[in-house]
Amino acid sequence: MSTSTKKHSSGCLVAYGLDTFGDRWTLLILRDMVLYGMRRYGQFLSGEEKIATNILADRLKHLEQEGIVQRARDPENRRSYIYSLTDKGLDLVPMILEIIRWGGKYTPLTPRRKKLVGRINDDCAGLLQEIRQRVQNPVE
Amino acid sequence: MSTSTKKHSSGCLVAYGLDTFGDRWTLLILRDMVLYGMRRYGQFLSGEEKIATNILADRLKHLEQEGIVQRARDPENRRSYIYSLTDKGLDLVPMILEIIRWGGKYTPLTPRRKKLVGRINDDCAGLLQEIRQRVQNPVE
Repeated sequence: MSTSTKKHSSGCLVAYGLDTFGDRWTLLILRDMVLYGMRRYGQFLSGEEKIATNILADRLKHLEQEGIVQRARDPENRRSYIYSLTDKGLDLVPMILEIIRWGGKYTPLTPRRKKLVGRINDDCAGLLQEIRQRVQNPVE
Repeated sequence: MSTSTKKHSSGCLVAYGLDTFGDRWTLLILRDMVLYGMRRYGQFLSGEEKIATNILADRLKHLEQEGIVQRARDPENRRSYIYSLTDKGLDLVPMILEIIRWGGKYTPLTPRRKKLVGRINDDCAGLLQEIRQRVQNPVE
């Protein structure tokens, strides 16, 4: 769906969520931040789905407007930005893990994905905590 | 996103989920089944978001093809169908509840929605069980 869709018209919470983060590319950017620790424009651009630069710019702006992502100058390169999840963004992690858990049940898995799905099934709370810490204290 | 999008190209589980159920209307149909116990074409059509009949037919067909929804002749009206969630569809309920939980934290709530979000926060496992039972043994 477009990010310019008329918003929250029905007042339904599912519709609210879909209007806010439900665009396909938006969710894949969030996945890149949550699972792969991506924080820079160029990292998102080089992701496996090959997002176009105009779509990436649009979705990052949208996520920032929605208060899900925050942007700061990159201390190592003042012409670039670092993107990170806000608390509102981090609160989306349980939903992202549920999408992965479901996918892991109904599609064949590579060993790496099998490990992730196993972790979600066995220790979801621990994984959530780990992701939160990693996002808030990135090591580069 | 379109239901005709090329599928699962990256092998990512989030992308798999989005390709399978991530369309906005698809998720709203699932919400209608999970939260409101809707089972008939006419019920979906009269939902608050006013889905168009061609989109509804397309999304129900897609959900059936994906094994998320199953269709059976309506015993009360042999020209109609009853739609219900399969186990694969029921396994999406935790994700739907996570979307609602998130929405409930970040948007103002009506009293009815406040009650639902409270239930998700306080007794998610019990609610999941209740939804599963209600979907599998509908009372009409």
